Amino acid sequence: MCGYNHQMDSSLTPFFRPLGVVVIGASSSPEKLGYGVARNLIASGYRGAIHFVSQKSGELFERPLYTTLSDVPDPVDLAILIVPPNATPSAIEACGLCGIRAATIVTGGFREVGAEGVALEQRCIEAARKYGIRLLGPNCIGTLDTHLPLDTTFLQPPMPAQGGISFISHSGAFAAAIIDWAREQGFGFSQIVSLGNQADVNETDVLPEVAKDEHTRVIVLYLESVSNGKKFVQAASEVTKHKPVIALKVGRFESGQKAAASHTGALAGSEAAFDAAFSKAGVLRADTAEQLFDWARALEDCPLPRGRGIAILTNAGGPGVIAADSLEMNGLFLSQLTESTLRELTTYLPSSASVHNPVDMLASASPEAYATCLKFLLQDEHVNGVLVILPPPPMFKTEDVAEKIIEVSSNSDKPVVIALMGSTLVEEARKTFQRSQIPTYPFPERAASALGALAKRAEFLATEARSTGELKNPSHGNSAVDLLPEELVATYGIQTTSIKLTRNENEAVAIAIELGFPVVMKIASPDIFHKSDIGGVLLNIKTEEEVQNGYALLMERANKSMPNAKIEGVHVQCQIPEGQEVIIGAVRDPSFGPLIMFGSGGIEVEGLKDVAFALAPLNQAEAQEMIRKTWAGRKLKGFRSINPVDEEAVIDALIKLSFLAYEHPEVAEIEINPLRVLQKGAVAVDVRMKIIGE
Amino acid sequence: MCGYNHQMDSSLTPFFRPLGVVVIGASSSPEKLGYGVARNLIASGYRGAIHFVSQKSGELFERPLYTTLSDVPDPVDLAILIVPPNATPSAIEACGLCGIRAATIVTGGFREVGAEGVALEQRCIEAARKYGIRLLGPNCIGTLDTHLPLDTTFLQPPMPAQGGISFISHSGAFAAAIIDWAREQGFGFSQIVSLGNQADVNETDVLPEVAKDEHTRVIVLYLESVSNGKKFVQAASEVTKHKPVIALKVGRFESGQKAAASHTGALAGSEAAFDAAFSKAGVLRADTAEQLFDWARALEDCPLPRGRGIAILTNAGGPGVIAADSLEMNGLFLSQLTESTLRELTTYLPSSASVHNPVDMLASASPEAYATCLKFLLQDEHVNGVLVILPPPPMFKTEDVAEKIIEVSSNSDKPVVIALMGSTLVEEARKTFQRSQIPTYPFPERAASALGALAKRAEFLATEARSTGELKNPSHGNSAVDLLPEELVATYGIQTTSIKLTRNENEAVAIAIELGFPVVMKIASPDIFHKSDIGGVLLNIKTEEEVQNGYALLMERANKSMPNAKIEGVHVQCQIPEGQEVIIGAVRDPSFGPLIMFGSGGIEVEGLKDVAFALAPLNQAEAQEMIRKTWAGRKLKGFRSINPVDEEAVIDALIKLSFLAYEHPEVAEIEINPLRVLQKGAVAVDVRMKIIGE
Repeated sequence: MCGYNHQMDSSLTPFFRPLGVVVIGASSSPEKLGYGVARNLIASGYRGAIHFVSQKSGELFERPLYTTLSDVPDPVDLAILIVPPNATPSAIEACGLCGIRAATIVTGGFREVGAEGVALEQRCIEAARKYGIRLLGPNCIGTLDTHLPLDTTFLQPPMPAQGGISFISHSGAFAAAIIDWAREQGFGFSQIVSLGNQADVNETDVLPEVAKDEHTRVIVLYLESVSNGKKFVQAASEVTKHKPVIALKVGRFESGQKAAASHTGALAGSEAAFDAAFSKAGVLRADTAEQLFDWARALEDCPLPRGRGIAILTNAGGPGVIAADSLEMNGLFLSQLTESTLRELTTYLPSSASVHNPVDMLASASPEAYATCLKFLLQDEHVNGVLVILPPPPMFKTEDVAEKIIEVSSNSDKPVVIALMGSTLVEEARKTFQRSQIPTYPFPERAASALGALAKRAEFLATEARSTGELKNPSHGNSAVDLLPEELVATYGIQTTSIKLTRNENEAVAIAIELGFPVVMKIASPDIFHKSDIGGVLLNIKTEEEVQNGYALLMERANKSMPNAKIEGVHVQCQIPEGQEVIIGAVRDPSFGPLIMFGSGGIEVEGLKDVAFALAPLNQAEAQEMIRKTWAGRKLKGFRSINPVDEEAVIDALIKLSFLAYEHPEVAEIEINPLRVLQKGAVAVDVRMKIIGE
Repeated sequence: MCGYNHQMDSSLTPFFRPLGVVVIGASSSPEKLGYGVARNLIASGYRGAIHFVSQKSGELFERPLYTTLSDVPDPVDLAILIVPPNATPSAIEACGLCGIRAATIVTGGFREVGAEGVALEQRCIEAARKYGIRLLGPNCIGTLDTHLPLDTTFLQPPMPAQGGISFISHSGAFAAAIIDWAREQGFGFSQIVSLGNQADVNETDVLPEVAKDEHTRVIVLYLESVSNGKKFVQAASEVTKHKPVIALKVGRFESGQKAAASHTGALAGSEAAFDAAFSKAGVLRADTAEQLFDWARALEDCPLPRGRGIAILTNAGGPGVIAADSLEMNGLFLSQLTESTLRELTTYLPSSASVHNPVDMLASASPEAYATCLKFLLQDEHVNGVLVILPPPPMFKTEDVAEKIIEVSSNSDKPVVIALMGSTLVEEARKTFQRSQIPTYPFPERAASALGALAKRAEFLATEARSTGELKNPSHGNSAVDLLPEELVATYGIQTTSIKLTRNENEAVAIAIELGFPVVMKIASPDIFHKSDIGGVLLNIKTEEEVQNGYALLMERANKSMPNAKIEGVHVQCQIPEGQEVIIGAVRDPSFGPLIMFGSGGIEVEGLKDVAFALAPLNQAEAQEMIRKTWAGRKLKGFRSINPVDEEAVIDALIKLSFLAYEHPEVAEIEINPLRVLQKGAVAVDVRMKIIGE
């Protein structure tokens, strides 16, 4: 087989829709992975050509075992490699010579085992580059598509059930365990991709390809990192416009201490960057593996709610209260039912039932009662979705209730999720719901969490629709290296105080007179970041004499606290009116680019941790969200004796700072602390900056 | 049957260890509850006398159906009532006449259905009181003991498996669903008590009785409220000394807005009180139903860890990272393995394995490898417990790994929990672990959460042992009603500023001179709680003239802002040195008594919510814990340019305020805001108090 070629959508197409597959390293020994891959490929029902290459000739599953790749007849555009690590580079070469441009390397023993493996993996990459071959793996369990169908894994059969969830995983073991677990949970998959060491193909490459699949309704990611933050955000942002993406990102606690020149730098970390990146890209972030798939099942099967008000329908008080708690914990609330719904429920239900949300029909509730009340609730304009609680009813079969619920919920454009409590007594009902694609959960807490994910998805799509094309800000060409921090932020239209460097007492007095009293004096030193920590800031200086004394005092303090710091003199600036003080800052994440911070400033910022992060550049909605998330932001509107100040000016400054950071890759960190927010406007009182490499 | 009597441990004993049981309302119709109860009682294998009373005579399960209770032969000391609601009071009378002193009312249709039901329930209570009968229910599913054995419920057989978990539930439906669910999860129970409407017997009555049961190793509570907060804390505190108690308290979000005279009152709520009560009583509070039993299974089976450092043993990187994240989220950390352990692991494992915690043996790990490495880890003095991750190993049977793990872990006094990932491929292993009482969880997150619960339990026992008998504080007899707030706190030894009420400018000047400048002036009015909100506080008043002007200014502001407020004059007090300012306060919870608050004070306290709560009276450890939990507390030790202050003085003031509140039931709310904490000592700058009924 040589020289076969065909039109393809992208270089990754053969991994997903191959015309023919060859297993290199197929084996007749059932305990070998090369046997498992061959077995699954055939058992999957894959309709393209299937060929096996092995060291020994013979037959396997009634097909010939070829001893050389070149003997394999066309068409083949995907090779699955299960040869020993040191034989892999030459196997890739052989693929190249035969015109195969896609290879999945199942074998482990590369980068993950140390220096020797790293070298071997590099040789694979080089061999692949030479021929323009795309590599999946090494050290992965391959790919799987239940609809095509195609199974290039060695996992124990049967293949997962068909479904609308596609799963992209950095961990093969995790994917394998999930596949087994999903069987018992009763949900299926569309595509599964195990990425392994990502010598070539990574999560960002695969995501848009999987999103193209017509059977994929939800994409689930298990991530240990991302290869390139900016590209990931770009790719994911495109995908989430059309299909929901949920991620479990692990390694939250791996990053240790780091040196930082600013509060923003100290508080920002790779986790804050991931949160900000997922938020920007519209990726829902799950906290646990269970949540990942609880959410995926709801997003696969349910219409999206139009708001956060939810109704609870139950036949028992206790679980109803659990559900009500859980709605609140997931940012949802109990809908206030309309008068007309309350009338309908009151007429229909026995007088001892509770018609107010949560609607408790009592233990005697029949299948018909469930259906009728569910219909009333779904028709209520205040109800955006219903959480139905169904423990085994004492007088009826649970599956009969299920049938009746399905009749109603299938005809609704509002989500209905079921807390199906129990096990053996509800098993039949679980299958009944499954067949009708209504998600069930063993406890109300998990059902409420799934509804929360639906609401988040709906809100993301609504915001996304509104915010398109909002990013516009003039670019500023000056390099930050040539400017003082204050000058740089001023070029972006952020208001600063008049600030002048003075080198002696007399100069300070002259400047103070020029600016007008009262003034503020600050020690000027590139080495002293936290000036107030050493008493390096004097406020409310009202007279010439105070300026003179202040100059001497600042010098004395600086020399005493930091004798080795380079002291340039004293900055003198106008004292600005009282207002609220906040911190805004930017720090460059190595992968995602500038991360913007907003929150409570001052010297306690690192202790209070009342801060929010988002990725630059910010749009209006993102800046507003940062304000909403923090106490510093919420109190801009005023609180008790604290007067309201100009919230719009903060939003404006945040957006401007985000563009500054976005357009100046040479700025490692920049921070305005405080930004004093006045009744009208906001002024950068102190600006610090760190240039990359400085 | 009449007049039978016997010695009993308590009036509740017949519910738990009856000598004979009569079912009143037994039925031959299989769809009736009265049939289910009779069936279960016999099927349970209960060894005491079993009798049935029914409207129609005849036979049921080869026993006679008596038509009157008095025909039932002795001995019977427990009646299960399943007669219609309106027949229940007379059935209780009949029990009384026959000397039965304990009755479980299964029937519903009482308090839970409205006014008529309330009246009927009251008649039951009166009938019971007349004869000294204890009532369980109505509207409950009864009790169950797998060891005795005894089953008075009507639930579908079989009875749950035997186990060491006892479950006390306010919701019968929830208990029924849990019993069914537990079957699939593979864990058993010792006793189950469903409380229903609690006309008589409540959770606090039952808790010590269940704790007496020798087969009960863990007690799980599902609570919708508690009948009497103080009694509950007292009873639970006794139980938790010997056996762990875990609670799921629902209705978190039920309490709405409330009027409060202080920040403490506004921030405290019934949830803060429950948290504080559980903490004081050593009850572990679970967030979800799944967590409740995840924790219970670990507490049932595992020894307690001696510290928070845990080792992870895995055959796959991904789940290892998930586990590491989850340990941190549960307040645990990865143990730093000793040199000797690292050497052993390095020698034993292939070079490509990772010997640092998490220990990753790679996918090829054999049953022996699991056992050997587990042994190394359990021997490490830095390791207090091990989380073993076991997805289906590609080359071995999972159950073979299980066998090997059990050999090692059974001989250890450190906890070992298993994240057994998958379903069909790990089913045999799950049963194997179950038989050896090693708890398994489907995901690392849940296993880590269980280890967290073990650590919390261990720490509670350690603290409990240390803090016994620490509560001693002189009681002060004065009624708070007769004292100014400042005077009251002063009698408890909390330092206050000299504060004097002045009624005109001249008096203010005279007092200021007497106290010495600078002084602070504050508007004096019982109607103005948040004085600084209306500009009612003037600081740093240095001259006689400033005092005069200040008096007029305060009057003007008060009249303008609150024209209807009663103004008594102006308080003048010494201005005290700079320091850190915190809030300490107490508010009386209607059920649990005084709830103490500590945190960041000032006017932003309600926005920042940097506060912690605990129940009065506080001991040293509890006061320290409140300080540890808040930023206001952590920074007492100093932070950046903020100087350290006298933390001990805050602890002292907290304990004193807690005794003040504890010993003065007439105080509804009392709050010191700010308490200014100095280098040495702490001064109550402003004290507010609300007397009950005022």
